[in-house]
Order: sequence, then structure tokens, then C-alpha cells
Amino acid sequence: MRILVVNANTTLAITEACVLAAQAAAAPGTEILGATPEFGPSVISTRAENAIAAHALLATLAEHAGAVDAAILAVSHDTALDAARQLMPCPVIGMTEAACLTACLLGGSFGVLTLGQARPYEELVARHGLTARCAEVVGLPLTPQQAIANPDGAAGQVLAAAEAMAARCDSVVLAGAALAGMAVQLQDRSPVPLLDGITCAVKLAEALVAQRLPKPRTGSYAAPSGRTGIGLSPALERLLRGG
Amino acid sequence: MRILVVNANTTLAITEACVLAAQAAAAPGTEILGATPEFGPSVISTRAENAIAAHALLATLAEHAGAVDAAILAVSHDTALDAARQLMPCPVIGMTEAACLTACLLGGSFGVLTLGQARPYEELVARHGLTARCAEVVGLPLTPQQAIANPDGAAGQVLAAAEAMAARCDSVVLAGAALAGMAVQLQDRSPVPLLDGITCAVKLAEALVAQRLPKPRTGSYAAPSGRTGIGLSPALERLLRGG
Amino acid sequence: MRILVVNANTTLAITEACVLAAQAAAAPGTEILGATPEFGPSVISTRAENAIAAHALLATLAEHAGAVDAAILAVSHDTALDAARQLMPCPVIGMTEAACLTACLLGGSFGVLTLGQARPYEELVARHGLTARCAEVVGLPLTPQQAIANPDGAAGQVLAAAEAMAARCDSVVLAGAALAGMAVQLQDRSPVPLLDGITCAVKLAEALVAQRLPKPRTGSYAAPSGRTGIGLSPALERLLRGG
Amino acid sequence: MRILVVNANTTLAITEACVLAAQAAAAPGTEILGATPEFGPSVISTRAENAIAAHALLATLAEHAGAVDAAILAVSHDTALDAARQLMPCPVIGMTEAACLTACLLGGSFGVLTLGQARPYEELVARHGLTARCAEVVGLPLTPQQAIANPDGAAGQVLAAAEAMAARCDSVVLAGAALAGMAVQLQDRSPVPLLDGITCAVKLAEALVAQRLPKPRTGSYAAPSGRTGIGLSPALERLLRGG
Amino acid sequence: MRILVVNANTTLAITEACVLAAQAAAAPGTEILGATPEFGPSVISTRAENAIAAHALLATLAEHAGAVDAAILAVSHDTALDAARQLMPCPVIGMTEAACLTACLLGGSFGVLTLGQARPYEELVARHGLTARCAEVVGLPLTPQQAIANPDGAAGQVLAAAEAMAARCDSVVLAGAALAGMAVQLQDRSPVPLLDGITCAVKLAEALVAQRLPKPRTGSYAAPSGRTGIGLSPALERLLRGG
Amino acid sequence: MRILVVNANTTLAITEACVLAAQAAAAPGTEILGATPEFGPSVISTRAENAIAAHALLATLAEHAGAVDAAILAVSHDTALDAARQLMPCPVIGMTEAACLTACLLGGSFGVLTLGQARPYEELVARHGLTARCAEVVGLPLTPQQAIANPDGAAGQVLAAAEAMAARCDSVVLAGAALAGMAVQLQDRSPVPLLDGITCAVKLAEALVAQRLPKPRTGSYAAPSGRTGIGLSPALERLLRGG
Repeated sequence: MRILVVNANTTLAITEACVLAAQAAAAPGTEILGATPEFGPSVISTRAENAIAAHALLATLAEHAGAVDAAILAVSHDTALDAARQLMPCPVIGMTEAACLTACLLGGSFGVLTLGQARPYEELVARHGLTARCAEVVGLPLTPQQAIANPDGAAGQVLAAAEAMAARCDSVVLAGAALAGMAVQLQDRSPVPLLDGITCAVKLAEALVAQRLPKPRTGSYAAPSGRTGIGLSPALERLLRGG
Repeated sequence: MRILVVNANTTLAITEACVLAAQAAAAPGTEILGATPEFGPSVISTRAENAIAAHALLATLAEHAGAVDAAILAVSHDTALDAARQLMPCPVIGMTEAACLTACLLGGSFGVLTLGQARPYEELVARHGLTARCAEVVGLPLTPQQAIANPDGAAGQVLAAAEAMAARCDSVVLAGAALAGMAVQLQDRSPVPLLDGITCAVKLAEALVAQRLPKPRTGSYAAPSGRTGIGLSPALERLLRGG
Repeated sequence: MRILVVNANTTLAITEACVLAAQAAAAPGTEILGATPEFGPSVISTRAENAIAAHALLATLAEHAGAVDAAILAVSHDTALDAARQLMPCPVIGMTEAACLTACLLGGSFGVLTLGQARPYEELVARHGLTARCAEVVGLPLTPQQAIANPDGAAGQVLAAAEAMAARCDSVVLAGAALAGMAVQLQDRSPVPLLDGITCAVKLAEALVAQRLPKPRTGSYAAPSGRTGIGLSPALERLLRGG
Repeated sequence: MRILVVNANTTLAITEACVLAAQAAAAPGTEILGATPEFGPSVISTRAENAIAAHALLATLAEHAGAVDAAILAVSHDTALDAARQLMPCPVIGMTEAACLTACLLGGSFGVLTLGQARPYEELVARHGLTARCAEVVGLPLTPQQAIANPDGAAGQVLAAAEAMAARCDSVVLAGAALAGMAVQLQDRSPVPLLDGITCAVKLAEALVAQRLPKPRTGSYAAPSGRTGIGLSPALERLLRGG
Repeated sequence: MRILVVNANTTLAITEACVLAAQAAAAPGTEILGATPEFGPSVISTRAENAIAAHALLATLAEHAGAVDAAILAVSHDTALDAARQLMPCPVIGMTEAACLTACLLGGSFGVLTLGQARPYEELVARHGLTARCAEVVGLPLTPQQAIANPDGAAGQVLAAAEAMAARCDSVVLAGAALAGMAVQLQDRSPVPLLDGITCAVKLAEALVAQRLPKPRTGSYAAPSGRTGIGLSPALERLLRGG
Repeated sequence: MRILVVNANTTLAITEACVLAAQAAAAPGTEILGATPEFGPSVISTRAENAIAAHALLATLAEHAGAVDAAILAVSHDTALDAARQLMPCPVIGMTEAACLTACLLGGSFGVLTLGQARPYEELVARHGLTARCAEVVGLPLTPQQAIANPDGAAGQVLAAAEAMAARCDSVVLAGAALAGMAVQLQDRSPVPLLDGITCAVKLAEALVAQRLPKPRTGSYAAPSGRTGIGLSPALERLLRGG
């Protein structure tokens, strides 16, 4: 089974870190491939960047259509997830979506812990229809740069936040590239399970691929057909045209 | 990996059918065990039976605590799911919950199709916090007995219903033991993917076990401790006592 | 009019305390009977115990089917309320449900105050469909044992909590056996009305019995008919069989 | 116990009919008084009339403040219910609210059946925070005049509607003065219980009065104090001034 | 274009202040008229006053039916808004509604900041169907009298509250006559836009009038017709009679 | 005042039609400018096209940053609305958002009528937080091509749908470029007001510009600052860099 890990920003180091995390989570026999957009934001931390990255991500995904069994969006905003699902012939899974749905499987309520603004993740959880399961979204007042510069300090803050969130949450989703690896590192010390997006996405992708479910033939997730455009990549054009 | 498939009613034939379905879905290396309660309703089709079966199911689960890596509730009402999660030291997954969460992974809205009354499944979806993702629950005016007596007629009705539901649903969960096997049988003819609870539960159980997530140490899903009772099975008593 | 007060745990002292509270609330001409399960948890304070107690409670109720005009579930989790309603030929009322609906009659928003975890009561209010009326659920960090050992201290904490909750709540439901009697004791000093579950349930049961409303003949609350099982009490078997 | 039945329109015949219905439902020892506004709409069937009637109803209620133990709003729109609760020193209950809360006590979902437009009742149920319990509101295409002119025909339509609603509703609230008496008349033939607003309100008023709950001393339901106005009735002025 | 600014209380000074604010916001060519009820509460700060004022406001509006192009309710509770819309032949806009909808146009979530109790504004936002857009309602512990006596102190408290609310809100609606003028005064110092009800209502009224949309001919917002009453003003009677 | 009408697809004819509609709605003194993306989908009718168009639309908007007083998204999916709001220094309004908020101002519930799939518009209304105000979304089984080829037939279908929707809706939003002009054409024959997105957006843009509200300085709608990317247009790069 070949799973594509697609970054939505242009920073190769993030793609590589996500690929490593995915490989650590993959079952024997699962091959992990990485892909990085050739254009778009260096890092996504604003609404505008997220919207631009949607195009970049779809164009990158399109290059691999037919050559992979599933794709994982390695971006905590689950950028363009619905569009990617419609476009691609294989299952597509968002990393934060995957962690939230895994949290549901553990029972009770989950929290989401991120760096910076909480609001976009509240909206994301709402778009996934999971607001009723999400007890709170907490944004630590810490930039990714600060977290990377002082990983021990960041880990301490994450653990303290998880301990506080455990009063309301039965598990905590760690959202954002800067928190990658934290779930494993702090799992034993946290009062509730910590969920890592890439890990969850790999396991759910494997679970989905094994079922070999067909794509819907009707509705807004059916593959595009006969659509045209200007200035799009050949691969993207091909998928929109369908056939 | 050992996964227990626990029936919540006392009909051995249903346990056996679910075990077969689980084995068909299991990855190499996954061993499926079946278990059937020694008391309780023959079949669960009323609120009262469902409440009684909760005890029977927990008692049955308790016999296997520590001996299995995960448990699947082979009852479409996801009977006592929250209690089973708290009680057991391993992951526990409900078959309808599993199908609904898998439907979420496919994107868009799902429908639930069952025999008989729709209302209890609407409540179940609401308890899972997934109402926003569920476009409709349809109950076919057909008893399990009728479906088993005339499987081709039942299959025709299920397919017709799925076709109608595809106007609002991007996938359809088939709920109820009497519809077991239908998803595979009708998958190619259905306009949207059909989801089978046991199959989805096996794949999600495998995905969860592989992550080796700890149990919460606080909150209402932490293991019971120091609890006592009268007339409970020794295994159930032991789990309630904890330690 | 005969009203049955059914405990869901096996502690006779709790049944007796609830019967006394019910008698204090009953109108002239209302006779209060108590019943205690013969098996099940000593006290219900976990999800697992609540699920097990459902069976015990239904079995206890079944012994009195036809011999009482209404039944009150003397357990603050409103254990198996929907199942009991379906099973019994008379009205069945949960004590926390009763207090919440009485709070609705007072107008505005209510709060729920309990000892220990708030979350299960938030879920209970949601299952009753009353989330929009419930401003908050507060769980005091106090065990029932501590409350009973130091009643004045507990009363002080309850009053302080009610005063704080009055900023958002127009009335406060006291939930949990350990708070029985507190509503009457603190009523004069509380800024908003305090509601006692047993008292509310008795008054609503009397109101309902007087109306002599029939049971639904269709739907998921119609009496069971033709259902069978193994190892169930004769009384329970009889009700499931119906007819 | 003295319960005031306040009409919100100026039609004495409606007040009298509601008083009779209330007397039929009252317990021995409960005295029913009627009151009719001296100004306002003849009948309330538009949003504008309902808003005007709020003033008329409060002025009428104010005349009886201190002289009754509870008040029932004999208007199916539960006109000015929150204001009346704040203003009056005794419990105030709306007739549709009472029927909806009684329906909750029966379990499951209720429907509301009325003549004419359904939408205002959907809004009313939402204001009561009971949308999650209400499966549907059905407005029969029949004017009150037609219903009164042809009571058998109207009864037939109501029964047919209740039978159809029983597919989704475990009980049905009959809303509107023109349907008074129908619940009793059709109860035996209906597949699910039919609820009459005045009857339910009387029983709930009796239940509430017996509890002797205090009025909140803080919040938006505390009695007005020190409020003044122009052109208000002396009784209304007195209650607004408080003290 | 003539826009009527209708106060719902009888305090002429408030009407005059609102008319001045409206004139400051009006486009060239927009004429602002003021109107004050001849009866009703001096100031509206309780549920009872709000209900009484509904009648007074409709009677005042009715005097101008046909003579103005739009009406603005100069009362932060949007008193009787739905009734006024049905009754009047022209668009009617509530000042808090206008500010909330303008906040929606700015994107993200808004907060509402008022003096005194927050709860009635939470209910108002819910009645407008905008709960999902409203991050919080904050009631400063300050009476209108205190705010008027110490405007600089009040401004300081409003600004401090707006700064705190900016953590969750992308804009803040200032609700209540005592905060009139604050939005303009503090706009430059606030981290998020402050919205003034009268200003927003004038601009939205101009926008709506320019579209010349017809009134609905069916449903609960269609003009009343053939309705009668007792003791109503001739103008109100005329509108209820219709034709 | 200069208002930019930005198309999100590359079809110049649609831009021109929208500019004409905007000019017809504009007040004297309002200048309407049109803009068309240089890349992206020819027409947006799938999720994938909508995601791609987000980039194209932001790039097109960026070219006019600082040169216009407001921007209107001339695409019925309100593509990238939140991102555009964050990015641009001026107000940005979506055409369907504008029509829905205008419908709110008319009171009651609105419906949305479109050609093709209803589901994406249901999601759009939900993202705008207006689900509680939207009674239904209806998708006519008609392609834009069919509507343009047979305008009278399409008009007949739209009118028939509006008449049916009037049973539940107090106004109807017409969504989609192919329905442009229909609102004006059918207004007199429709039982409830029909709302045109471009017209509503122009009037609301004028209303918003006149208020000269500042941009938020904090939160997820504050202007981007210090953001970088690869392969972005110079204008887009400049806005992301900020300063």
C-alpha cells in the first residue's frame, strides 16, 4: 500500500518531518511517499495563506493521482480536504480530522491544543461536524519558532495545558507541525491520551484502503467531469476534465 | 492482535455470523474471537431489551479483560459503549459508531439505513455527537425475519433505498444484523458507498490497537476503582474493584 | 394513588431516605412505596455501574408492574429511564429529569450542582434535550462520604456554589443522593430556587397520574410484545412477552 | 389553592371555555378563577396581535397579584410568559409550554398540531428550548371558524393528522383554543397520547404551588423594583414599582 | 427617503439622542424623524417593561404607517421587532439586530457588550438565529446612571472590556442607550471594530429601502387583515383591519 | 466610492453581467469596477474548482488593494470570503452572504434556490452561521446551460419553486450566476420577496463603506504580516508581507 503525505506549504523540512512520522506509524507493507507544493506559502498561519495553499495542494496531489492508494494532508488546517476528496480517485484524510475522529473512538470529549490562535481550529472542528464532541480548543501563547528554539520549555507548556484540559477532555489532539512528536514524548506523563495527527491519519488511511470502498458516483463528492480552466497544471486539468 | 467480537444478545448464530464477517475483514495477524452473553434478550429490538443487554454485555466483556487487544460490540445499538470503554483495559468500538466515523472519513454527509424504527438510531447518532454529519436515518418497513426469509427482496429494497438516499447522502451506513453482508453484495450497484459496521469496526480496532494509546487516568472514562456490588459475576466484580 | 420509589443501587439506606423525602412531598392520598434492587452496584458513580444498574432497576420495577400508578427513579442519573418508560404500564419519572423540567417551569436557565464529575450530568441534560435551558453543570470537589461526614461544611459549599451560579442560572437543580434535603435546608438563603429531584418527581408523578394518559400504541415507547430472553426474572420476562 | 386562568384576548367566551376546562382538570381544593383583558385583540392570530396582547395580559394579571397562588396563560402562544413570570409574585405557566413539558415527561419526541400556520409554534418551541424534543409542528389548513362550524370534520382531520404524526412523535400537543376538548374526545382513538394545554397547565400549576418555591432574588426573573411608566394601570404600576 | 426612529420608552431625551445619532449616520437625502410612545415604561430594563413597551411601540409606529420609507427601533432589546415587521408596510430594523448583522459582514465572531444583565441579550441573539456567530455577551456591572454620571470612567471600562473580548471576538456590538456615542469615541483605541446600533440600522435601512422589495403576501409576516380589537388606537386598529 | 466586483472564474461574460447588475443597484456616486482572474476554472461547479478559484480570486483582489473602497465576490459560493477579508484593507462581501443577511433583515426564515446540488449551499449557510434562519435549500434539476437556453422555462420553474418554498420561507435567495436578473423579473409574481446576491452585496457594501470601520488589529482577521511564499503574484506577495 502506498500512502502519499502531502504538505500544503513549500517548506521541504516540514514534509520530511511528516514523512518520518508517517513511516514510524505505518504498518509493514505500507510505503510512505512525500510531496511538497512548488508554489504557495512557506508556512500556513493565516486565513489568506490557507486559501492560497488549497490550489497548491490540489496541484501537488494531482501529480500522484492513480499512483497512490491514499493521501494524507500533512497540514493541521486540513486544507481543501473536501476538494481533495472529490478530486482524487483514492481516499484522502486530513491530519487533524484523523486525530479528532480517533479521539471520538476513545470515547467522551476531546480537546484540541495548538500554538497561537484557537479560533480557526474551532471553525475546523465545526466544519467536520464534531463540535458536540470537542470540549475546548486551547491556543498556547507561543510561536512555532519559540517552540522549536526551546523544545523542553514547549513540552512543559504542552503537558501543563493537557493536565488542565483533562478536567473537561478525555483526550487531547495536538494540532500544528510544531507539536509533531510531542504526543509520543509526553504520552506517559499526560493524564489523558495525546493524539498525533500524522499517526492517526496513517492508521485510518490503512484502515480505509483495506476496505476498498468505491467513490460515490453522484453528489458533490463524485469525481469532476468535463470541467475546464486556464493556467492550471496538466495533471490538475486532467482530473477536472475526468473521463 | 486479538480482537473480541461480543454479541449483546444470546443468539449464538448472530455471534457466529459477526465473527465470520470480522474474520473476512481482519488483516493477516489479527485473530478474531467471539463471545455471547449467557443471559439477556434473544434479540434486541426494544429500549427495554437494550437496557437489559447492557449488563449482559459488560459481564461477557469482563470475562475477556486482559486477554484481548480490543473489543467490538456486535450490536447495532452500540449498547453500553461508554460503560464498556470505561470498564475494559483495551479499546472498545461500537459497530454502528465505527461505520459512522468511517463515513465521516469519506467526506460529506452519511445516511443510516435500518429495518424497523429509525428513531433509536437517530438518538444513537446524536449520542455519538454526529447529528450534523447525518443527513437522514431511514427505517425500511421490513422485519428481520422477512429479510432473512426473502434475501433477494430485501436486497432490492435496500438498494432502492440507498439510491433514494444518495440524493442527500454521500455514503450509507447499513445498521442491524439482518443487513450483514449486504454492503459487500450491493456495493457495485449502489451510487454511494455502503458501510458495514463489523468491517469498519475491525479496521478501526486494528488502527487503534496499533497506536497503543494509554487509558485516561482521570475523568469518567478512567478505570473504575474500589466499586462494589451484589450478585455480579466475579469477572465484573474484579474490574469494578480495580487495582 | 400509589407511587413507587425505585432505587437503582442496592443500598437500602438510600432507598429509605428517598422514600422519606417522597412522603414529605406527597399529597394527601398519595401512598409512597420503596423498592431496592436485589443485585447490582452498591452505589452508582461510574459509567459501568450505571449500565449494570439498568438491568437491576428494570427487574425491580417489573415486580411492581400493574400494582402502582407511577414510578420514580430514585437515582440522579435517571438510569434506564427510556427503557423503564417503555416497559412499564404506568408513568415513570426520573428524579433529575423532574427537577430539570420543574426548573423550566420557573423560567429562564437552570444550573445543575452535583458532587464529583459534571460531565455525566451534562450528557444527561443533553439526552433530555434540555441543553439550551441549562446554563452550567457544576461538580463540587467533594465525595459523598465527605459530604455526609461534614454536612455543615457541605451545605456551606453548596450555598456558595449556588450563589456563584446565580450569576447565570435562574434556578439550581441539586443532583445526587448526598445532596438530598439540602434544597429545603438552604432554600431561604439561596438567591435562586433550589430544586430537589425526589420532591419534583413526586409532584410531577401526581400531575401525570391525574391525567390518565394512555400509553402510546406505536413507536419505540409502545409496550414490548413477544420478546424473549434467557436468565431474566419471571416478572421481567412477563413484561417483555407482553400480551 | 386559587389558580387564575388569564385569557390574552378580549373574547369572554374563550375565557369561559378555558375556565371550564381548567375546572375539569383541577384537583379537589383547587379553585379556578377566570380573567379577560379589557383591551387588546379579539383573537390572537398574528404576530402584531400577540405583541399587543402582551400588555393587555400583564395588566390583567396585575389585578390579581397577591390574590392567587398561580396563574395560567390561557393563550396557545404563551404570550409574554417570561414577563409575566418576572412580574407576578406567584408561579405563571403557559398552556403550550405546559403541554410540551408534559410531553417530555412521557418520553421520546412530541409533535405540535395546530390550525393555520406552524411557524410561530416552531419559534415558540425554540424559545422554550425544546426544539430537540419536538419532532414536528403541523398546521392543519383549517380556520378556527371552520373547525367550530364543523366539529366532526375537524375532529376527523385532527385524528388523521395525529395518526400520521405518530410515525415520528411519541405524543402530540394540541395547540390553539379551537382544539380545546379534542384531546379528551380523541384520546382513545389516537395511537399516541394527545395533550391538552389547559389540563396540563392546571396539573403543573398545582405541582408547583405545592412546592412553595421562592422567587429568584437576582437575575432577570427577580421582581421589578423602582420602575416607572406613563399611562399604565395602577395595578401594573404598583408591581413595576415593587417594594 | 424618510426614516422613522422610534423609541420604545417614553423618555423624550433618549429619542432625541437617537435621532441625532441617526442624523449623523444618514446619507444626504435621508430625512430622520423621531417618535416617542405616549404611554409605557420610562426606561426598559426588565422583561415586564419590554413586554408592555411592545404595545406602545406598535401604537407609535402605526401613526406613521405609509408616511415613512423605513422604521428603526431605537431600543436595544429590538422590542416587538417581528410584530412591527408584520404590521408596517415598510422595512423595520432593530438597532441591535442591525449591529449584529453588520458584525457578520465584517467576518468571524462578534461579541455584545452592555451594561447590566447579559442574559436578555443572549436570548435576543438566539432569537435572531445568530448564536453561532456570537462569541460572548458581556454585561458590565454598571448602571446607566453611573455611566452617564461618569462618562470617562465608563469609557475606560468599555475599552478595557473590548480589549479583553478581542481575544475571542472580531468585532464588538455596543448595546444599550447608555453606550450611544461610545463606538465613535473609542474606535481608534479598540483592537477590534466597535459597532453602534443606530448607525448600523440607518445604513441598513437605506440599503433596504433602495431595493424596494415587496412585503410577503403569505406567511406570518404578511400584513394583518380583518383583525379587530378593543381599546386600540385608531391607527393601530386600521393596520390590523388592513385592506 | 469605488466598489470592485471580482469574479472567481475566468469567464469574462459572467464578470460583465455581474458588473451590469451591480451598476443597476449602485447609488449615485458609486463606481463599479470589474475584475476577472487570469487563471483558474472557467466556471465553478465542483468542490475542486471552488478550492482552486480561491487562489485565483485572492490574486485578482490583491491587484486592487488600496485602490477600491470595497470588494464584492461575484461568485455564489462566496469563495475564500474569510481569506479575502483578512487579506484586503477594505470591506469584502460575498454575494450569497449578502443576500442571506438581507433576508434576515426582512424577518423570519429564508430559503435558498439554486440550480443543481443543494448541499454545497447548505454548507455555505452553515459556515455563515445562519442555519437557524434558513428553512430550506432547493436545487432545481436544471443545468445553467439549460436555463440560459430556455430562459422562460427556467423562469417558470423558479417561480413555481418560490411559490412552493413560500410555505416555509418568508423570502427566497436566488443563488448562482444563471439566476441573475430573475429576482427583478419575477418579483411581482412571487408570494415572498426574491433576493439577488449582487444587488444585496452592492447595497451592503455601500452601507459598510459609509461607516468607515477600522480593520481588526488582532485575531484571525487582522492583516497578514511577514508572511512569505513561492510563485505568488507580486501583489499577493506584498499583501502577505504586510507593513
